[in-house]
Amino acid sequence: MNYRMLIYLLGIITIIEAALMAFPALVALIYGESAAPFLITMAIMLLLSLPIVIFKPQNKRIYAKEGFITAAASWLLLSCFGALPFVLSGAIPNYIDALFETVSGFTTTGASILTEIESLPRGILFWRSFTHWVGGMGVLVFMLAILPADNGRAMHLLRAEVPGPTKDKIVPKMRQTALILYGIYMALTIALFIALLCTKMPLYDSLVNAFATAGTGGFSVKNASIGAYQNPAAEWVIASFMLLFGVNFNIYFLLLIKRFGDVLKNEELRVYLVLCAIATALVTFNTLSYFPTVGDTVRSAFFQVTTLLSTAGFATANYDLWPSFSKTILLLVMVIGSCAGSTAGGLKISRVIIAVKNMFRSVKKTIRPRSVNVVRMDGEPVPDATLHATASYISIYFALIVVVTLLISLDGFSIETNLAATLATINNVGPGLGAVGPAGNYAAFSPLSKIVLTLTMLIGRLEIMPMLILFSPATWRKG
Amino acid sequence: MNYRMLIYLLGIITIIEAALMAFPALVALIYGESAAPFLITMAIMLLLSLPIVIFKPQNKRIYAKEGFITAAASWLLLSCFGALPFVLSGAIPNYIDALFETVSGFTTTGASILTEIESLPRGILFWRSFTHWVGGMGVLVFMLAILPADNGRAMHLLRAEVPGPTKDKIVPKMRQTALILYGIYMALTIALFIALLCTKMPLYDSLVNAFATAGTGGFSVKNASIGAYQNPAAEWVIASFMLLFGVNFNIYFLLLIKRFGDVLKNEELRVYLVLCAIATALVTFNTLSYFPTVGDTVRSAFFQVTTLLSTAGFATANYDLWPSFSKTILLLVMVIGSCAGSTAGGLKISRVIIAVKNMFRSVKKTIRPRSVNVVRMDGEPVPDATLHATASYISIYFALIVVVTLLISLDGFSIETNLAATLATINNVGPGLGAVGPAGNYAAFSPLSKIVLTLTMLIGRLEIMPMLILFSPATWRKG
Repeated sequence: MNYRMLIYLLGIITIIEAALMAFPALVALIYGESAAPFLITMAIMLLLSLPIVIFKPQNKRIYAKEGFITAAASWLLLSCFGALPFVLSGAIPNYIDALFETVSGFTTTGASILTEIESLPRGILFWRSFTHWVGGMGVLVFMLAILPADNGRAMHLLRAEVPGPTKDKIVPKMRQTALILYGIYMALTIALFIALLCTKMPLYDSLVNAFATAGTGGFSVKNASIGAYQNPAAEWVIASFMLLFGVNFNIYFLLLIKRFGDVLKNEELRVYLVLCAIATALVTFNTLSYFPTVGDTVRSAFFQVTTLLSTAGFATANYDLWPSFSKTILLLVMVIGSCAGSTAGGLKISRVIIAVKNMFRSVKKTIRPRSVNVVRMDGEPVPDATLHATASYISIYFALIVVVTLLISLDGFSIETNLAATLATINNVGPGLGAVGPAGNYAAFSPLSKIVLTLTMLIGRLEIMPMLILFSPATWRKG
Repeated sequence: MNYRMLIYLLGIITIIEAALMAFPALVALIYGESAAPFLITMAIMLLLSLPIVIFKPQNKRIYAKEGFITAAASWLLLSCFGALPFVLSGAIPNYIDALFETVSGFTTTGASILTEIESLPRGILFWRSFTHWVGGMGVLVFMLAILPADNGRAMHLLRAEVPGPTKDKIVPKMRQTALILYGIYMALTIALFIALLCTKMPLYDSLVNAFATAGTGGFSVKNASIGAYQNPAAEWVIASFMLLFGVNFNIYFLLLIKRFGDVLKNEELRVYLVLCAIATALVTFNTLSYFPTVGDTVRSAFFQVTTLLSTAGFATANYDLWPSFSKTILLLVMVIGSCAGSTAGGLKISRVIIAVKNMFRSVKKTIRPRSVNVVRMDGEPVPDATLHATASYISIYFALIVVVTLLISLDGFSIETNLAATLATINNVGPGLGAVGPAGNYAAFSPLSKIVLTLTMLIGRLEIMPMLILFSPATWRKG
């Protein structure tokens, strides 16, 4: 284990966060609020990290293991520092609550322990929404975009942070890949911001909602979430962009370089769009009696499906009151999630496609044991190692759901609430059902459950392995 | 596909069922009830099957595929005929309901659509409980025990019906293996019957409860299940025997031939007993305030844990009213289930052990990619094929849970009820939570949901693959 390099990278990450915190500090000053909470936190971060980064390590080699540990440790560290402004400003006096809220921000979950949002300072709310935007594309990817790094090291870091069963580099050079990803992300965010302004949403709200939508996070600056604006046009814009941010960013790159054929034959994209259409149709038919017009029903169904499929978790309607069939569909799209290589959470469409094809292969193999069955994705054969890794991933994922549901059940909420809270955090969605539904929040959980759910959000965002490796005794044993 | 042999075996199975139906007919006559429903059904079965079995097929070869299809088709056929006495006697006038009840019996689920049990004729209730006993060890195993068969064919049939990730023959000859299994099953059932008589339970009740306990089924002849007897001694006896019937029957064979060393080093047995002890302790502490004395709490906790771990599904207390933590533990032991090669359902302990060890291996492999990590069970290395098959099995299992929960959610029950109903049927437990809890039943579901849950019980009992193969178009395609 290259401890020296690990600590150096953590130092760099801390400096990046200090730099990013200048934005909310500026917003606080613009609105005449105190910027002290941000400035104090920035000072602490710089004091701790500058002495570390001035000595560059000689041995810069890192392997897969260090890549995973750097990812897990960075996210923990970012969250620990990121929670300080909430505590220092008095917005969230309890540190465990502030950590929950910050991790929920960086992991783009959007689960909140706040019951009253609108009275908080604008700088604090800006920081809360900005963490979604930073966490959406990933901080390590950001670091790769701005720092020169050799390809091997960069790949290990990218692998640990970018979602999905397989990781493709867009271009051979890792740094350029990271730059292209952030370029697309930035362009889409700006387009969304302008679109929201066109719907007559106020400037500040357009900006923070654009951050939360782009990161598929779901924090809003209103107690009633997006529903508070009573703005159908804005709902259509946000729903459409949630769908766009759930697409694999490689698709946008392929569009940029005009390889439309590759886009059309992309199975994940097709399944994603078809799933969204079917789920929207089913929820629409199932909730027709809940809305005055068919148009309202379609808009509400489309919004709730995209918000949970993209795992953003905004709300325009209290779907906790909808029929069980619709609620089950919403839970299902939450679990499936969006495309690999997007800012969204969940199992990821491509992983589900591989798992389903693998199931059919198991059945075929039992019928004709000697037949050769190759699982194909986009026409290419999927290696056996990926098939097995996917099956393992899904069984670990479900095992974690069981363990987390059991741990938080000590608080005595209903099984529906506990299961929904676990699914909403591990899939980085935010709101669930029951006590943690779109009209509720996570404030009532015990500190122990909040810590468990905080770790669950990180496990979900980093796709399980990095966090397991960070906390595995085998990692820290010599040898 | 050897259709001739498939139809021949189905004919044999039908004759065996006709012979088994003589027992409830006899019980009906003893209690002065009409035996007509049974005699008519027996006549129909013999008329249909005798013309088939007099012509023995020349080509007796069957392969893995035919083995699975024979298993799935036999269980469907047995259930279709087995439902007739319920309809003919007027006990359950609706055929879909009667089929649900019969499949619930044969698959040892114990889920009921009956709201009033005690007023039914004794012959009918005997048949209802007897299906548990027949289904517990398996009808194909029974056929193997009484018919001469070559080893290869027998192995394919055994593989499709006996639960667990790997199938061991106790002795090289398949027919002797089947005879030994049924011998142990019979001996344990008789011991239980005598023990229940000693607790002063009436003769008839002791017999039918012994059947339902041995098959880990859970049908009882009282509306309040085992709780109705107010007999603590009987509760201890039944709970202990549920634990015994959840043990892999190979263990009893090893005890018979005095290989105590092999028994002691059996990991599945140890994990099973430790799991039962931990779950009982946790539920005891969590429900202390619900019972007058600590003794009552321990007895109730031990009974509910063994009844759900062994997937029998008897009830002595309405655990639906217990705290969420206990309910979640009970759902968890329901999913894990008992040992492979027992009469119980669930994922099976050995499959869970393999999956958990495989998870640790995935983590270790990510930390040290070049290290060699062998998963061992009872000291022997587990082949990679078994590891992958187990991971696939678990992902198919969870996918089925999601699909079934979604399908039955159209009836509008709560998500807790729907999920619990799915878990209770796929794991062959019987009672779940909420509307299908120990104080409820499945009567209120729509006919469509009843058919879905009926298939789910069969899928669970035959461990998924046979039913998937039976209904897979690829099976019936030529080639």
